[in-house]
Amino acid sequence: MITVYSDDHRFHDGKVELNDGKLVPCFEMPRRAELVLARVKATGLGEIVPPKPHGLDPVRRVHRSDYIDFLSTAHDEWKAEHGDYDALPLNWPVPGMRRDVRPQHIDGKIGLYCLDVGTPLTAGTFRAITAGADVALTAAALLGTGERAAFALTRPPGHHATSACYGGYCFFNNAAIAAQALRDAGAARVCVLDVDYHHGNGTQEIFYERGDVLFVSLHSDPVHEYPYFCGFADETGAGAGEGANLNIPLAWGTDATQYVAALDHALARIEAFGVDALVVSLGVDTYKGDPISRFALDHDDFTAIGARIAGAKHPTVFVMEGGYAVEAIGVNLVNVLQGFEAAD
Amino acid sequence: MITVYSDDHRFHDGKVELNDGKLVPCFEMPRRAELVLARVKATGLGEIVPPKPHGLDPVRRVHRSDYIDFLSTAHDEWKAEHGDYDALPLNWPVPGMRRDVRPQHIDGKIGLYCLDVGTPLTAGTFRAITAGADVALTAAALLGTGERAAFALTRPPGHHATSACYGGYCFFNNAAIAAQALRDAGAARVCVLDVDYHHGNGTQEIFYERGDVLFVSLHSDPVHEYPYFCGFADETGAGAGEGANLNIPLAWGTDATQYVAALDHALARIEAFGVDALVVSLGVDTYKGDPISRFALDHDDFTAIGARIAGAKHPTVFVMEGGYAVEAIGVNLVNVLQGFEAAD
Repeated sequence: MITVYSDDHRFHDGKVELNDGKLVPCFEMPRRAELVLARVKATGLGEIVPPKPHGLDPVRRVHRSDYIDFLSTAHDEWKAEHGDYDALPLNWPVPGMRRDVRPQHIDGKIGLYCLDVGTPLTAGTFRAITAGADVALTAAALLGTGERAAFALTRPPGHHATSACYGGYCFFNNAAIAAQALRDAGAARVCVLDVDYHHGNGTQEIFYERGDVLFVSLHSDPVHEYPYFCGFADETGAGAGEGANLNIPLAWGTDATQYVAALDHALARIEAFGVDALVVSLGVDTYKGDPISRFALDHDDFTAIGARIAGAKHPTVFVMEGGYAVEAIGVNLVNVLQGFEAAD
Repeated sequence: MITVYSDDHRFHDGKVELNDGKLVPCFEMPRRAELVLARVKATGLGEIVPPKPHGLDPVRRVHRSDYIDFLSTAHDEWKAEHGDYDALPLNWPVPGMRRDVRPQHIDGKIGLYCLDVGTPLTAGTFRAITAGADVALTAAALLGTGERAAFALTRPPGHHATSACYGGYCFFNNAAIAAQALRDAGAARVCVLDVDYHHGNGTQEIFYERGDVLFVSLHSDPVHEYPYFCGFADETGAGAGEGANLNIPLAWGTDATQYVAALDHALARIEAFGVDALVVSLGVDTYKGDPISRFALDHDDFTAIGARIAGAKHPTVFVMEGGYAVEAIGVNLVNVLQGFEAAD
């Protein structure tokens, strides 16, 4: 399997996030990608290629232009107002407030476009996420050249980013960008299968009213887990997208047996829907050792997950998402890819 | 003028707030009320009386019961989950997410009920805000005993708190609670006049669709100032409240001449509307020395503001709101009250 990778992810290197009411070092860090890259090399997974520049047009297919424009200048505006350090939000619209406003102050802009206080926006963020989108797009394009699968080794992750809000460490929704690119390249129906521990609220929001992109997510039940306000089983899509959204919330402590049963249910839904290509939002924070998650999967379980996904027999792009047990992330993530290849 | 005061405000004593992306000591602190109390005493403004307990029923007239219930147990839940320190939010609902959910985790609950990351919820918050509501209610009740005016010396402030969200240092909307109590005591029409530097988004939200409570606010233009998403001139009320909401946004650097002209415009609107009682949300962060605000009023200007308000000739409850130039808060705030009395 070809891996697409760019060193530019390193330009997004936040110092602190607010977590449990305290500023703590960022869980989402460059070392995550570096250890995955090292594991890709060590296992001989396959060729590693750089991304091709795609520009922002494919990003604009899933993100609002005003949001992209905001991201492109946000840190410069923050620096001019507050100083040369990472940006965090102050306040946000609640009922009785408006979103149809155009704040001139960077704090107001951040409040409009941000969904949590755990996602520092840094001087290098825009460069990193632009490269990240190129990584996802390059991996997606490989399917058009006859590749059975490709791996977009990218960070920061993307699945929490909605059409116009960042958060959950995510800015550009790489999986959604890849799925849209596959559609635009001719695939009639695409599925995004999200196996990250957290619900992919951004991907759901982007495709919620569309019948051409199926979104299927296995994740920790939002009644007790981030993102809390999205990811419930009764969210099945709307309008033309009714029936094209499947959430499978799982309890804290979910083990491999329970997880694989849920995954088989997800894969059956994908089979019934019928798709021409699959994008996997590949988080491995389902690992038992993850510092901010509560599932119980072990190294070998990731191999089994990859094998199950291979069984769907679709051209598949894997897009890296979460996983914060940093020293284990390489093994767990590449186990999925090796499991996929071995079963293929 | 009688001042109503309770020491219980001291139970709300947050350690840090997130401001400009950094955790800094709270601007809103017990010393604010203590210095105002000292100034009330030093100037001989009048009798100082304790609040009478009113229970939570008058609070429920303007805040949702689930919100009050949340506040009553939030810190205990936070402490059980995270530890014995102040609570700050993690994430919040954005478009594509839901508010019709009932999170079981305290982080999710806070995300539903909070509007900024500058407002720590502490172990003593509920006791302090309950006392604060009693202070406002006791001051409002004094009008029914024939007092021309009364001063509710209370903190934390209230005007940013909506029917179901806290933030901007505010939890219970004391001014709204007082206004509703005046309505319930027989006043047919009441006005809340908000002269705090920041827009009173909470008070606006609470009364936005009601024609019996006029909300008039002078404040820093939200296009470049907190709360950013509310407080624009085109927000004039809705439904039965159409025409009963007047926002007067003012530019950074507004001086006394400009401010008094705007105040006269506000008072003319109140006169035209016709009210039986006036509640003044009395913030003095319009002071030139305020550390987080950008107007240019000086000590004597507050005396003039009090005199102008007295000219409206309505029974008046002053409810303390913002003001963060702590050493000047006593002089500025009591100047308003003395200006009122001298002109009366």
